[in-house]
Amino acid sequence: MDIAALLGKATGLAFVDCSASSETIRMLNQVVDMGCCVVLANKKPLTSTMEDYDKLVSYPRRIRHESTVGAGLPVIASLNRLLSSGDPVHRIIGSLSGTLGYVMSEVEDGKPFSEVVKVAKNLGFTEPDPRDDLSGMDVARKALILARLLGRRINLDSIKIESLYPDEMGPDAMSVEEFLGSGIVSLDNDVQERVKRASLNGNVLRYVCVIEGSSRCEVGIQELPKDSPLGRLRGSDNVLEIYSRCYNKQPLVIQGAGAGNDTTAAGVLADILDIQDLFP
Amino acid sequence: MDIAALLGKATGLAFVDCSASSETIRMLNQVVDMGCCVVLANKKPLTSTMEDYDKLVSYPRRIRHESTVGAGLPVIASLNRLLSSGDPVHRIIGSLSGTLGYVMSEVEDGKPFSEVVKVAKNLGFTEPDPRDDLSGMDVARKALILARLLGRRINLDSIKIESLYPDEMGPDAMSVEEFLGSGIVSLDNDVQERVKRASLNGNVLRYVCVIEGSSRCEVGIQELPKDSPLGRLRGSDNVLEIYSRCYNKQPLVIQGAGAGNDTTAAGVLADILDIQDLFP
Repeated sequence: MDIAALLGKATGLAFVDCSASSETIRMLNQVVDMGCCVVLANKKPLTSTMEDYDKLVSYPRRIRHESTVGAGLPVIASLNRLLSSGDPVHRIIGSLSGTLGYVMSEVEDGKPFSEVVKVAKNLGFTEPDPRDDLSGMDVARKALILARLLGRRINLDSIKIESLYPDEMGPDAMSVEEFLGSGIVSLDNDVQERVKRASLNGNVLRYVCVIEGSSRCEVGIQELPKDSPLGRLRGSDNVLEIYSRCYNKQPLVIQGAGAGNDTTAAGVLADILDIQDLFP
Repeated sequence: MDIAALLGKATGLAFVDCSASSETIRMLNQVVDMGCCVVLANKKPLTSTMEDYDKLVSYPRRIRHESTVGAGLPVIASLNRLLSSGDPVHRIIGSLSGTLGYVMSEVEDGKPFSEVVKVAKNLGFTEPDPRDDLSGMDVARKALILARLLGRRINLDSIKIESLYPDEMGPDAMSVEEFLGSGIVSLDNDVQERVKRASLNGNVLRYVCVIEGSSRCEVGIQELPKDSPLGRLRGSDNVLEIYSRCYNKQPLVIQGAGAGNDTTAAGVLADILDIQDLFP
């Protein structure tokens, strides 16, 4: 058997998955075997089992997935550069949901949580059922993608996820209308209390993902210094702080719009063009 | 003549220039002709004549120069991603000198300009002759590299450069000792005055490069809002704000240590590894 066959010869074709479905995973397994490159905006294939993940990244130079985290923001490209230069990343903390970024900065101004979520929904910032954002599951998928990029061999269920609503207000228990009409109001006091407590310490609350050391990986509300890049965040921008040997006391910070059709598409297009180097 | 010969066949070798010399330019011309890839930390070859520049980038996929701007910060990689995705960049504003970033944030606190420069020199933040930093020439070279990346066909002498000392205190007119001993003190009042004026407008002063529209490219002190990413900058971090169609109201921001041997070397190494895609 010659080396080319052993390595799987690249075809020069790229398979681009911009869906939000788990159903593409089987097909992706096949296209990888066929020597195709893969470009993903879809988080699901990268957050499935370790076995599926290993298969997907089995030819690491043939896969790009910038738009899975922070849309077109150069998060994955920057992390890959750090990792390939051998700079050990020991901490990542980021606000990776424009929706939750907006919500947390609005409640900081004293507005009731329930009102802020309703306004966010009306502005089109949330999913049709805002609980899809408030559950933290989308942020957890992004955290898993980053953690696996750093070499962690973990699954979604190893991530500690804080939901912004209790189980008894989940989609199985009440409709969106009930949740927004009566359920969510009962959460206002608790959120307001936490905002106040943080403020007394000179801090603010942010819904972040934290990946740290060799095992910590969690998603939820953290109290952060007002004057850190994350603490200063307003509105729906994403921010990622990366701490490594080179970026030790002061992190490498990447900030900007982390959602939207145009920036997501731009990230996918840049990925496709980046892959062309493999076929000079 | 076949296509391969016409295009110049790539050799798989990379020529890495980590000097700060103009004398490598002739050699770089030759290695490009020989089909070598080029990785630069040296700004001089990219800020020479347009003819030299065109020669250097004649095979755009074979050149990387991340560490010429902001050391290892993923500035060039991120800009290249935006450009390759077709997202038009209409404005770049950045603080690209750790030294001048430090100086401007210290004078903002009311410290005399002359004292701040002397402390910066003692901390090893400046060149042996601090006028090499204060002249703005180093920032201008970085601005030129960014402007040419955006497609501007300009030279160093088309950039408006504000020097932080007058001609009559230049290296031809007085020694470093004279400059630091007596010359620079006479600049304190003027700087203090400008800081105060900016403060009355709720602004701060930053030494920045601005590349805007189809012709503006300048380097110097600007009055900026206190609460912009640049206005909030403290210490010696670099910050770059990129405005494009995708990053329109809120810029794409990249921030972090923009100087230092380790991060510069990490940028060069990541560039070298990135090039390997050309030789699968």
